Amino acid sequence: MRTRVTELLGCELPIVQAPMGYIARAQLASAVCEAGGMGIIETSSGRLDEVRDEIRKMRDLTTKPFGVNIAQLFVRDPSIVDFVVEQGVRFVTTSAGDPTKYTALLKDAGLTVFHVVPTLRAALKAVDAGVDGLVAEGGEGGGFKNPRDVSTMVLVPLVCSKVDVPVIAAGGIADGRSMAAAFALGAEGVQMGTRMVSAAESPVHTNYKQLIVESAETDTVFLNRFARPGFRVMRTPYSEALEREEQVPLGELGKILDLYFEGNLEGAFAFGGQVAGRIEAVRPVKEILEEMTADCRAILVEWGKRAAE
Amino acid sequence: MRTRVTELLGCELPIVQAPMGYIARAQLASAVCEAGGMGIIETSSGRLDEVRDEIRKMRDLTTKPFGVNIAQLFVRDPSIVDFVVEQGVRFVTTSAGDPTKYTALLKDAGLTVFHVVPTLRAALKAVDAGVDGLVAEGGEGGGFKNPRDVSTMVLVPLVCSKVDVPVIAAGGIADGRSMAAAFALGAEGVQMGTRMVSAAESPVHTNYKQLIVESAETDTVFLNRFARPGFRVMRTPYSEALEREEQVPLGELGKILDLYFEGNLEGAFAFGGQVAGRIEAVRPVKEILEEMTADCRAILVEWGKRAAE
Repeated sequence: MRTRVTELLGCELPIVQAPMGYIARAQLASAVCEAGGMGIIETSSGRLDEVRDEIRKMRDLTTKPFGVNIAQLFVRDPSIVDFVVEQGVRFVTTSAGDPTKYTALLKDAGLTVFHVVPTLRAALKAVDAGVDGLVAEGGEGGGFKNPRDVSTMVLVPLVCSKVDVPVIAAGGIADGRSMAAAFALGAEGVQMGTRMVSAAESPVHTNYKQLIVESAETDTVFLNRFARPGFRVMRTPYSEALEREEQVPLGELGKILDLYFEGNLEGAFAFGGQVAGRIEAVRPVKEILEEMTADCRAILVEWGKRAAE
Repeated sequence: MRTRVTELLGCELPIVQAPMGYIARAQLASAVCEAGGMGIIETSSGRLDEVRDEIRKMRDLTTKPFGVNIAQLFVRDPSIVDFVVEQGVRFVTTSAGDPTKYTALLKDAGLTVFHVVPTLRAALKAVDAGVDGLVAEGGEGGGFKNPRDVSTMVLVPLVCSKVDVPVIAAGGIADGRSMAAAFALGAEGVQMGTRMVSAAESPVHTNYKQLIVESAETDTVFLNRFARPGFRVMRTPYSEALEREEQVPLGELGKILDLYFEGNLEGAFAFGGQVAGRIEAVRPVKEILEEMTADCRAILVEWGKRAAE
């Protein structure tokens, strides 16, 4: 499964872990790297001292390459670029902001830069800004979203047909079937968020993981459909009660951390995508990546044969 | 590209045309059949005298098999079953209603029955009712939708993993890439609506076709998000102005027909899915089906080789 994504990122598998705030830290990211994928450390928490520690931990936990995400909506201080460069990271995804802001700076520092995009228009803008690749993220995924959401099935082939840079598909990806579909759509890699939150090495409380495991595909809620930032979360009594509000705030940090790490599902949002409906167990990252790669390969080989008949 | 869908339906290609009210009539459906796909005649208009004429025309225009759709939301008279059986049709899709209502009657009359489903729960119910197959329709598609919409990338593999009957993927399908992706997800056929509305043989006014061609992937609007029936239409000044209404009526029939056949885009809804953003020209059905089949095959063969390396 060598693609331009594995070449550019220097990892074995074209599978990237999404940069969930507070969650995408060394314990999870190093497990992804060790399993052959691309682990990403978040900075959206804004806690750069902690992030620095996490990056130090990464160096102890893995010798494989890893990346850092800059979520521009949350990290407004331009010194984030110096920070990332100083950490010696080689790969950065930028998201939730203008790609012209940091791309040149990061590229000048020798980093590989992929920008996360929800629309073709954003994709073209990022390519103009000089990115090495794109993460095209369908609206079925969890987390921050363009309120005018576009599904992976439409977005990925559209973007791939209009740009020459490699594209990583995100949104709705959880296994070998969805990975094979992403390749068919023109992507050269996949990114997973919800699946990674539910993984054994994910640092979140078991209640959050179980919420994902027990949710049906219809159990997500899109908030701020007509406001910004739009975001998709797991359906809970808390999120469902706010679904029709014109403008929903992200909530207090204390309550978010209480949900993530203490398992109190009331009082904050549990980010997650529709693909939760396809996740049936908490499993180690290595198992997830091995099985999805083997299944993806088997599906493509089988259909390749059938199509050649 | 032989699958259980081509076997059950008796057509050459596993490509089904969606049953758009007033549009899915002999001119379009016969073109699909002649190109090797499965053309479907609608009954959701409720104009059964016209439908009878259209079915008669089909027999003049093609010797290939074709189907009829029963949209239960619009056709409430149970005599529709007798009507369909009398027409000598062998394949029926049922949609927008309870699958237990007509499945047994249609099966007893010897027809092949596929039920259209937006969720796993609906899929399991339809299988329990004895259907021969399912059309799993992602929320990115045009037309009537479950307000709690689930994307094709999530819905199709989920349904395929839980049922043994063949599944046709709908929502976001327009070409060989999306068809190959649908196969990777576990489907054995695809259904296209928006692409077929835009086809040369579609009877709608050129303004409606041009609206699809000119629209971006973000140019659809989901109406009745919290009411029923939910539906997705092309973004126009008319539909966008109603987007935030609690309950939007479907509108006057006269205005709908005025939009469809006179090209007056104000005053009614132009049904359509996000995949409009991938449709760049009005083309004959035969060209669309030939190109998508060839592309699908080429993509699967190529990835089959890469995966076998």
